[in-house]
Amino acid sequence: MKITIIGLGLIGGSMAIALRKAGLASELIGIDLNPENAKKAVALGLVDKILPEDVALPQSEVVILAIPVNATCAFLPSVLDAVNKEATVIDTGSTKNLICKSVANHPKRGQVVASHPIAGTEYSGPEAAFFGLFENKTNIICEQEKSMEASLTVAKKIFDALKLHTIFMDPVEHDKHVAYVSHLSHVSSFLLGKTVLDIEKDEKNIFDLAGSGFASTVRLAKSSPDMWAPIFEQNAEYLGQALAEYIMHLQRFKYHLMKREGKELHKMLTKANEIKRVLG
Amino acid sequence: MKITIIGLGLIGGSMAIALRKAGLASELIGIDLNPENAKKAVALGLVDKILPEDVALPQSEVVILAIPVNATCAFLPSVLDAVNKEATVIDTGSTKNLICKSVANHPKRGQVVASHPIAGTEYSGPEAAFFGLFENKTNIICEQEKSMEASLTVAKKIFDALKLHTIFMDPVEHDKHVAYVSHLSHVSSFLLGKTVLDIEKDEKNIFDLAGSGFASTVRLAKSSPDMWAPIFEQNAEYLGQALAEYIMHLQRFKYHLMKREGKELHKMLTKANEIKRVLG
Repeated sequence: MKITIIGLGLIGGSMAIALRKAGLASELIGIDLNPENAKKAVALGLVDKILPEDVALPQSEVVILAIPVNATCAFLPSVLDAVNKEATVIDTGSTKNLICKSVANHPKRGQVVASHPIAGTEYSGPEAAFFGLFENKTNIICEQEKSMEASLTVAKKIFDALKLHTIFMDPVEHDKHVAYVSHLSHVSSFLLGKTVLDIEKDEKNIFDLAGSGFASTVRLAKSSPDMWAPIFEQNAEYLGQALAEYIMHLQRFKYHLMKREGKELHKMLTKANEIKRVLG
Repeated sequence: MKITIIGLGLIGGSMAIALRKAGLASELIGIDLNPENAKKAVALGLVDKILPEDVALPQSEVVILAIPVNATCAFLPSVLDAVNKEATVIDTGSTKNLICKSVANHPKRGQVVASHPIAGTEYSGPEAAFFGLFENKTNIICEQEKSMEASLTVAKKIFDALKLHTIFMDPVEHDKHVAYVSHLSHVSSFLLGKTVLDIEKDEKNIFDLAGSGFASTVRLAKSSPDMWAPIFEQNAEYLGQALAEYIMHLQRFKYHLMKREGKELHKMLTKANEIKRVLG
């Protein structure tokens, strides 16, 4: 298959590596707005060549978008315009409702498979791409009823090659769930980083005392703002709800803390401990 | 050296393993209020035997306390009463101000080395103990000027055997710093766990969508409430300040989120990204 990947960062680059290894891509074409990244992606052997959109898109059997979600909303309709009628277009955005809406009335809507492979690290760019990123991870397809059978079949081949486990979900449900189990984690981590950096201005050498627990909790604060700010904005409604609940719990904890109510704190921690059941 | 360890969990057990391997302990005696844990610690070979306090303490050259910080405050004075005048008593609590105060006027204060080895995992109990927990980690000694030279020398031998890197700090400074780089991380993680567990009651299968980012951010929520509730309570003042700042940042983020101010969100994330400098 001739595959074009738009966005040659962690996600797009790791897809390129896996699709080539799986023998699924006869040719891998890259598109990236950032010429530096485009050059690197070729040098790293992620894609065979870089082509302009108007050349790449009409000749591709599969087009994968791995760009920030605001860019996906903006470009997806014109990508659809440009591809031929047999092509399959896969987006990989971490929000799904607005992306689905952006092509809801497009005459070629059936060629789109709206997807979210739940995989990533805190690193970004072509150098961050690696083989195996998607192995045994969950992939969500939204509005599969709006995708043509042929496109779903092609997408399934791609996802199988990446060793993703695919489930199906309504886009609104998707956005609500990831607000809690992904987007909120990122916000909590980003702002933990911010809080500690702020206090460092007054307190020197504070990080001498940081252990592995801090490193793990704050890891996601290294993530790309270009990628995450648009995700948060697009999921503002559900992320706002999740944040409100999180802040409420923190305030309740602080209330008991200020009153030195150790038993109440213990109760809250014991409840939170139930997360063991989930994390295994 | 004949060493008694009070509290045979992750910290005490891992110290026992390392001190035996280093050839520093001629005999390892264990004390644990929980008879189950005491039995396990012997079965696992962490300590040679379990003895009652009144038998163990007078014959020990070194006594290490690795119990919750409220228990340390309560027991440290009577441990000091019971040991002989050459013994060194080391506490390992994650708070230092109240622990130092608990023995401030004790006639044997000089025999105490108030310490905090910054090491741990989210697991607890004797089975959680492992070799190497302390390697290349930071250890803080507080009020070293109140410890006798002889006790500091013995403690240094112990910490060197554990391959800890020791620094010195005022107990109030210590508590303030760890409020930010350790205790706040734990609270953020515990309450993230609580928030997501709560929403799960209404939204089934929410954890199908949890990726490695969630697992990393919520890892500390598996930690022991028996250990952490007293730490939080003892460090209420500084942890309260840290929490207030964290909540303020979260609320500011939520404000910009609700107004769909993507640029402001991007700015906040970019600031938080500076944590890269610290995490390396």
